[in-house]
Amino acid sequence: MKKQRVSIPVRLGNVTVGGGAPVSVQSMTKTDTRDAPSTVNQIRELEECGCEIIRVAVPDRQAAEAIKAIRKGISIPLVADIHFDYRLALAAMAAGADGLRLNPGNIRDKEHIKKVVYEAKTREVPIRIGVNSGSLPPGKKPGRSIAAYMVDTAMLQVNLLESMNFDLIKIALKAFDVPTAIEAYRGIARKTAYPLHLGITEAGLPRTGVIRSATGIGILLYEGIGDTIRVSLSAHPREEVFTAYEILKSLNLRERGPVLISCPSCGRSESDIVGLATQVSNYLQSVKKPVKIAVMGCVVNGPGEAKAADVGIACGKGKGAIFKKGKVTRSVSESDYMRALKAEIDSL
Amino acid sequence: MKKQRVSIPVRLGNVTVGGGAPVSVQSMTKTDTRDAPSTVNQIRELEECGCEIIRVAVPDRQAAEAIKAIRKGISIPLVADIHFDYRLALAAMAAGADGLRLNPGNIRDKEHIKKVVYEAKTREVPIRIGVNSGSLPPGKKPGRSIAAYMVDTAMLQVNLLESMNFDLIKIALKAFDVPTAIEAYRGIARKTAYPLHLGITEAGLPRTGVIRSATGIGILLYEGIGDTIRVSLSAHPREEVFTAYEILKSLNLRERGPVLISCPSCGRSESDIVGLATQVSNYLQSVKKPVKIAVMGCVVNGPGEAKAADVGIACGKGKGAIFKKGKVTRSVSESDYMRALKAEIDSL
Repeated sequence: MKKQRVSIPVRLGNVTVGGGAPVSVQSMTKTDTRDAPSTVNQIRELEECGCEIIRVAVPDRQAAEAIKAIRKGISIPLVADIHFDYRLALAAMAAGADGLRLNPGNIRDKEHIKKVVYEAKTREVPIRIGVNSGSLPPGKKPGRSIAAYMVDTAMLQVNLLESMNFDLIKIALKAFDVPTAIEAYRGIARKTAYPLHLGITEAGLPRTGVIRSATGIGILLYEGIGDTIRVSLSAHPREEVFTAYEILKSLNLRERGPVLISCPSCGRSESDIVGLATQVSNYLQSVKKPVKIAVMGCVVNGPGEAKAADVGIACGKGKGAIFKKGKVTRSVSESDYMRALKAEIDSL
Repeated sequence: MKKQRVSIPVRLGNVTVGGGAPVSVQSMTKTDTRDAPSTVNQIRELEECGCEIIRVAVPDRQAAEAIKAIRKGISIPLVADIHFDYRLALAAMAAGADGLRLNPGNIRDKEHIKKVVYEAKTREVPIRIGVNSGSLPPGKKPGRSIAAYMVDTAMLQVNLLESMNFDLIKIALKAFDVPTAIEAYRGIARKTAYPLHLGITEAGLPRTGVIRSATGIGILLYEGIGDTIRVSLSAHPREEVFTAYEILKSLNLRERGPVLISCPSCGRSESDIVGLATQVSNYLQSVKKPVKIAVMGCVVNGPGEAKAADVGIACGKGKGAIFKKGKVTRSVSESDYMRALKAEIDSL
């Protein structure tokens, strides 16, 4: 696994993105931003799930003004998502937004951008240049790949912001097509040292979207690219936060709650491993510590995996061996599997 | 994305693994192998889902003998999973197994391996050397990483088989820990040209296991490593096959059925995108063609994504634009979204 690419740290409220900070997890609200109480409720729920940065859509002036009330009710930095109308960026900053996301595909007037940048600089509000394959500005030359054109688009905006002496910049280059997104992020990583916000855009419903997101974001993180991630799912945003952490956990980049190792079970298994793993998983929902639990169905990999976990069980015919921190603590009969596991988990 | 590593093709029944063949999808039955009718039923269901190679556990002689009846009822090659007892490998081949999986961690007597290899050579039955981090043989030197020791273990077995003039070899080096698995597969890919079977072992329940599997398998495939994959989930094996295809689809390595692009929706969306995407997804279950459908919630990325899909909708306030093959075909009101999409999908 490559070391994380060295990026410039950018502060967003109380969170640092880049500069060697842990890869942060963000999401976006799906409530009507103008409805501040509902939006605050959703953000608070996401904070509970570990969301570290939240973005809200700002489609109109009323939404921009609602940021004031939303900001008061939440603890994590808030990013205003702006398209088309630069005045909404000004209004969002006036209302207390900690960050802005601008889409170079749809705010193109330099004078407008200048006004936003001047205000952002004064208030020390970072701007994310959020390029998306679905909303690129016209001008791609035939033969230029979409990924290369996404990099061109972002770099034009980077240069524009830098020419205004502004460097509180983060960049995202999202696409639904995973190889396109990877090529784009790799390209921009070679060209700038600004922190990168990763995402596979419009990844769809969770059943397929979590897989597409894990593949794309996982490949980039493994290459050391990426300072903050947002998983985009057509689902409640808590699913986005959950998925983001599972991607990070699978690469040992972040810890969050327990890890459950469980065997797929096969014709060798003599007990209901899927049922037992499900029970254990449910029980672990109340556990906050990053413990490793292994639920294994036979003597092939069972003892090895159970030994490596904090608590494990290797099930045999009618009875199983309980492991704790690498040692067998007892042998229990099938009806006691869950009780014994609970006791060992509680004692950790 | 790197070109697929050049590997030696190995034929397994009617499927070629390696040598530039498409990355094949496999799974393992969870029925009692001795119960041939149930096992055949499960394999037939998996064939319907696109499973291309099936493995069954062979824990005893009765299971080995059941392969005869199972083999008759199915159309895809069958691999016998053997641990501890080499005689079960001989019995499985006699019963018609198309392939063997041996675990070098638990069959160590050279004379036993010799007998299996002699029989496999006579019958042209490939052997997968299936190393698993949970069942490594003793002997790892302190300081040697688990991944390096997994490679050592596999190479010892490769050399042993080659010394018996046997080369119908596939190799797997599975671990739950994603960086360990990647390091192991990278290591073996540098040392041999045999085809590689990828997997993240004991990945757990689907909610977390599909994410861990997609990260690990996705990273390797993107590096051009991997000729066949098996996703290990504590769930019905159809979930394993589904996940395997979604990983391959996300990297454009295989096609299978439709792809649904749908936006996460946000405070900008004026309609129920999650509900509409879910309805479309349900409708697409009966569609076999690899069509791309986009369900988008607003004018930011909506028209761009909908234009790039075979059929798409970009929803606005109370009405949406329907796209087909890059062109708007009509504008429909909200109550007609689903009807219009169905009509366009049917007409593809």
